[in-house]
Amino acid sequence: MKEIEQSILKETIKVRSNNSFKGTYGKIALVGGNQNFGGAIIMSSLGSVYSGAGLTTTLTDKNNQSSLHSWLPEAMFADYKNTTEMIKLLENMDVITIGTGLGTDENGLTILKTVLKTVKPNQILIIDGSAIDLIAKYQLQLPKAKLIFTPHQMEWQRLSGIKIKDQTEKNNLIAYKKLFKNSIVIVKSHRTQIYTKNGVYQNTTGTPAQATGGMGDTLAGIIGGFVAQFKDTENAVLAAVYTHSAIADILAKKQYVVLPHQISEFLPKFMKDNEA
Amino acid sequence: MKEIEQSILKETIKVRSNNSFKGTYGKIALVGGNQNFGGAIIMSSLGSVYSGAGLTTTLTDKNNQSSLHSWLPEAMFADYKNTTEMIKLLENMDVITIGTGLGTDENGLTILKTVLKTVKPNQILIIDGSAIDLIAKYQLQLPKAKLIFTPHQMEWQRLSGIKIKDQTEKNNLIAYKKLFKNSIVIVKSHRTQIYTKNGVYQNTTGTPAQATGGMGDTLAGIIGGFVAQFKDTENAVLAAVYTHSAIADILAKKQYVVLPHQISEFLPKFMKDNEA
Amino acid sequence: MKEIEQSILKETIKVRSNNSFKGTYGKIALVGGNQNFGGAIIMSSLGSVYSGAGLTTTLTDKNNQSSLHSWLPEAMFADYKNTTEMIKLLENMDVITIGTGLGTDENGLTILKTVLKTVKPNQILIIDGSAIDLIAKYQLQLPKAKLIFTPHQMEWQRLSGIKIKDQTEKNNLIAYKKLFKNSIVIVKSHRTQIYTKNGVYQNTTGTPAQATGGMGDTLAGIIGGFVAQFKDTENAVLAAVYTHSAIADILAKKQYVVLPHQISEFLPKFMKDNEA
Amino acid sequence: MKEIEQSILKETIKVRSNNSFKGTYGKIALVGGNQNFGGAIIMSSLGSVYSGAGLTTTLTDKNNQSSLHSWLPEAMFADYKNTTEMIKLLENMDVITIGTGLGTDENGLTILKTVLKTVKPNQILIIDGSAIDLIAKYQLQLPKAKLIFTPHQMEWQRLSGIKIKDQTEKNNLIAYKKLFKNSIVIVKSHRTQIYTKNGVYQNTTGTPAQATGGMGDTLAGIIGGFVAQFKDTENAVLAAVYTHSAIADILAKKQYVVLPHQISEFLPKFMKDNEA
Repeated sequence: MKEIEQSILKETIKVRSNNSFKGTYGKIALVGGNQNFGGAIIMSSLGSVYSGAGLTTTLTDKNNQSSLHSWLPEAMFADYKNTTEMIKLLENMDVITIGTGLGTDENGLTILKTVLKTVKPNQILIIDGSAIDLIAKYQLQLPKAKLIFTPHQMEWQRLSGIKIKDQTEKNNLIAYKKLFKNSIVIVKSHRTQIYTKNGVYQNTTGTPAQATGGMGDTLAGIIGGFVAQFKDTENAVLAAVYTHSAIADILAKKQYVVLPHQISEFLPKFMKDNEA
Repeated sequence: MKEIEQSILKETIKVRSNNSFKGTYGKIALVGGNQNFGGAIIMSSLGSVYSGAGLTTTLTDKNNQSSLHSWLPEAMFADYKNTTEMIKLLENMDVITIGTGLGTDENGLTILKTVLKTVKPNQILIIDGSAIDLIAKYQLQLPKAKLIFTPHQMEWQRLSGIKIKDQTEKNNLIAYKKLFKNSIVIVKSHRTQIYTKNGVYQNTTGTPAQATGGMGDTLAGIIGGFVAQFKDTENAVLAAVYTHSAIADILAKKQYVVLPHQISEFLPKFMKDNEA
Repeated sequence: MKEIEQSILKETIKVRSNNSFKGTYGKIALVGGNQNFGGAIIMSSLGSVYSGAGLTTTLTDKNNQSSLHSWLPEAMFADYKNTTEMIKLLENMDVITIGTGLGTDENGLTILKTVLKTVKPNQILIIDGSAIDLIAKYQLQLPKAKLIFTPHQMEWQRLSGIKIKDQTEKNNLIAYKKLFKNSIVIVKSHRTQIYTKNGVYQNTTGTPAQATGGMGDTLAGIIGGFVAQFKDTENAVLAAVYTHSAIADILAKKQYVVLPHQISEFLPKFMKDNEA
Repeated sequence: MKEIEQSILKETIKVRSNNSFKGTYGKIALVGGNQNFGGAIIMSSLGSVYSGAGLTTTLTDKNNQSSLHSWLPEAMFADYKNTTEMIKLLENMDVITIGTGLGTDENGLTILKTVLKTVKPNQILIIDGSAIDLIAKYQLQLPKAKLIFTPHQMEWQRLSGIKIKDQTEKNNLIAYKKLFKNSIVIVKSHRTQIYTKNGVYQNTTGTPAQATGGMGDTLAGIIGGFVAQFKDTENAVLAAVYTHSAIADILAKKQYVVLPHQISEFLPKFMKDNEA
C-alpha cells in the first residue's frame, strides 16, 4: 500500500492556462438531496464550486432550491423529479455524482436508475452515499462509465460483502479486482484507502476534528470538482482525498471540531498555496 | 453551593481519539421550532453542530427547512408533524432535546407527548422552553430517561411551584429532590444554578451583553452537543453552561450586545483553546 | 437648531446592569415587509437585534419568513395577515414600528389601521415609510401613543404639506407644533433634522456612501432598538440617528458604498466603543 | 484597438457629492432568473448593489425571492410573471438589464418581449445571456434605447453571424457598425473587447481563476451599477469591465479559483481605493 504524499498536490493542481475558459474546467452535475438531506447536496455542491469546477448543476428536491442558492448562487438548480429535464442535462456533463443525501426509498431508487441508464462511457460517475446502499441492496447493474465509488466502511461491507473487521488490504483488493476492476474505490475511514487499477493508496492526512456529519458529502463534491478539472482522474482522486483532510488538519489547529462547509470555503486558498 | 470553575473545561473537553468517527460523538435530535419560532430551533441546532455533536437532526415545522439549511447544511431535517418518521428517527438517538421554540398550543402538546412516549431509559432527554410550560400546565408524566431540564426562573416557578422571589437554594433543592431526583435541573438566570444528585452548582461566567432573545435556545443546543460527546453527563452539563457564558464574556469585551448565533460560531475555537 | 454631538452616545448608551435580563431591554415588534419589500423589514430587524433590543418580533408577509431567519434566527416571526395573532402580540410590546416596506396598497392600509387601533398610550410607535404615506393620503387619525415619525423629505412634504424647497427649520417647526406636538419627527436628508418638544436638532454625521436603498429601513430598526433599551426616548432617538451615520462614516473610509446591513452588523462594536 | 488602462477608474469613479441622495445613483431593474438559474440573477444583483446603484429591483421567478433576500435585503423583489407590475416598475427605471439566467423557453421569450416593448429611448438597456440568444433566434427587433450587449463569443456568433474563429477586430467592427451602431457591444473572452461608436477597446485585466460559472452574470450587474451611477456611459462600461477582472486579479493572488460573489463583495473596497 502506497501512502499519498503531499507531492500529489503539485502533480495535480496545475497552474491554469491563460487561454482557458469555464468549459475547460468541466461540467458537473450533482444528483441527490431529498427532503430530509438537502444539506448533504448543498455541502457537496460547495465542494465542487469552491474547488473550481467550471460549471456546477445541482439536481435535487425542489425544497432545497432556496437554501442551495442561499449558499451558492454559482450552482444551477434542477428538480430531480423532472426526469426529462434531468436526462437532457446529464447528457452534457463531464462528471456526475449520484447518491449524496439521496435517500434509499422508492424516490431515490427511481432517480438512481435514471442516472445509471443515462450515463455514457466517456462520463465520470461518482457513486456516493445512498446510491451505494441501493446498488448493494438491489444488485443494480453498473453502467459502462468511468466509475468512482466512495463508500465508508459499512457501505463497503454492503457493496463487497466483506465485514468491517475483515476489511484488510488483501481482502479488499480481491473484491475490488473481482467486482470493480477499472473503477476507483475510495474506502473512507480515519485513514481512507483508495483502490485503483494501478495500486492501493492510503491517505496520510485527517483529524478526529472531522468526525462530524457531512464530511463525506463534502468529499464527494471535492472529488467531483477535481476530476472535472484535472485530466489524470486517478491523481485527481488522490489529490482530492488528500486535500479534503489536509484542510481539516490546518483548521483543526485552532478548532475543536471542523465543519464540512468550512473545508470547502478554504479550498481556493489551499489550492493556490499548493498549485504546481 | 459549589461554583463551577474553569477547570471543568479540561476535565470535560477531552482530546479526540484518532480512532474515533462521527458515531463516537453521538446522535442528537432537536425537536421544536413552530411557524413563529423557527429561529429558536436554528439557534439550538447551531449550538449542537458547532459544539461537535456527531450527527444532528432537526425536527421542526417544514416552513423552517430552508432557513435551517441556509445556516446549517450540516443538520439533517425532518418534519415534526410526520409522527411515524419522527418516532423512527428518535429511536436511534443518543440525545433528544424537546421544546425549543415549540409553542404551547395543541400542535406543541401533541409533539411533546409523542416524544415523551417514545424516549427510552438509556436516552438523554433535554426538556426546554415550551416543553417545560406544557409539562407544568398539563401535569404530564415524565418518562423514564436521563432527564435534563433547562427552565428559566419563571418556567421553574411553573414547574416547581416556587415563586421567583422564593427560589432560594434551599427551597429549590427540596423541590428538586421531591420532583426531579436523578434528573439535572438548570435554573437559568444571570448566575445560572444547576441541581444534580451530586450537589448544587452556580455558574461563574456571564454578562448582561447576553440579555437578548435566543440565548436559552442556544444553550439547549450546546448542552445537547456536550452530553452527546462527553460521557460524564453531569460534567458535560456544567461545562456547557460555563462555556456558553464564557464565550459571551470574551465577545462582550468588544461588543455591547452578543448575539446567540455568534456564541455558537465561536465554539470550535473556544473548545480547542480549553481542551484537556 | 442644536447639533447632535458625539457626547449623546455616552449619555445614552449606558453600561448594562449585571442584574438585567432580556426583558430589561424591551420587547419590540416590527410590522412591515410585503411581498416586494421583504428586504426592508429584514434590514430593519437587523437594526433592532444588533443594537440590542431584548426581544424582537417581525410581523411580515409569510413569504419573508425564510429569508428573515436566514439573516436573523434571533427574530421571532409572525404573519402580519393574521390579525388576531398580531393584535395579541402587539399588546405585549414596549415598542412597535409600522410601515417599513409595508406598501401603500389595500393590504398595507388594513394592517396599518389595525396597528393604529391596537397601540396603547404607554407604547412607543415608530411610523415609517409606507405608513407615513398612507396616513398622509387617507388623513388617518393618529393614536394616543408615544409617536415617532421618520419621514424623508418627500414623505414630510406629504405629511406636513410643506414642499421640499420650503422645508426650512421655521416652517417645519410650525407644522410640527401644529400637527405633531409631543411626537418626535425625524426629517431624513443628508443632514437629518429631529423635531421634539424640547427643540430642533441636526445630525452631524453621514456620508454620501450611504446613498443607497435600505438606509432608512435600517435606521427605523436602530431607533426601535435604542428606544426599547434606553429610557430617555428623546436622547435614544438622537443617539440612534447619530450612530447610524457615524458607523457609515467609519465604514466609508474603506468603502465607496456602505450597505445598510453592514451598518447593523457593526452596531455591537460601535456601541461598545462608545458606551458610558 | 485601444487598451483599457487603469486610468479609466479615476476618470469614472467620482468622489460622491455631499448633496447626493440615493436617487442620484440611479434606479436599476434586473430582469431574469428562472426556476433553474435563480443564482444568476442573484449574482447580477450583488454586482449592482455592491457597486453602489442607488436603488436595485430584481424581477425574477417567485421561487428566487427567498434566496435573493438571503443574500441581499437591499434589493427589492418583483415577480417577473406579473406583467402589469413589471411594466409599471420598468417605466421608472434609469437602467434595465434583461436576460441574465432568463432561459430561452416560451416564458423567457414572453418576458423579453415585454421588456423590449416597454423600454424607452432615454433608458439604458443591458441585453445579457438568454436575451441575446432569443434576439438572435427570433430576429427580434431592437427597441430605441441606449443599448448595451454583453455576449460571450458564442453568443456573439449567434448575434452577428461571425464564427468564433473569424471574430477578428475587423470583422467584428463591420458587424457592429452594420447591426449595432450607437450601441455598446461587449464581446466577452479572456481578453474582453468592447465596441462603441468611439472605437474598439480591449480589457487588460483578468485571470483564469475567473473561469467559472456566474462570472458573466456578475459582470452584467456591475455594468448596470456603473452606468446607473456614472453619467458617461461608455466610460462606465469600460471601467466596469476593467473593475470586474481587476478584482479577480487581486483575489487570485491568494485563491486558485475566484467565485463571482466574492468579486461583488470586494467592490466597495476596490472602488474606494480607485476613486478619483
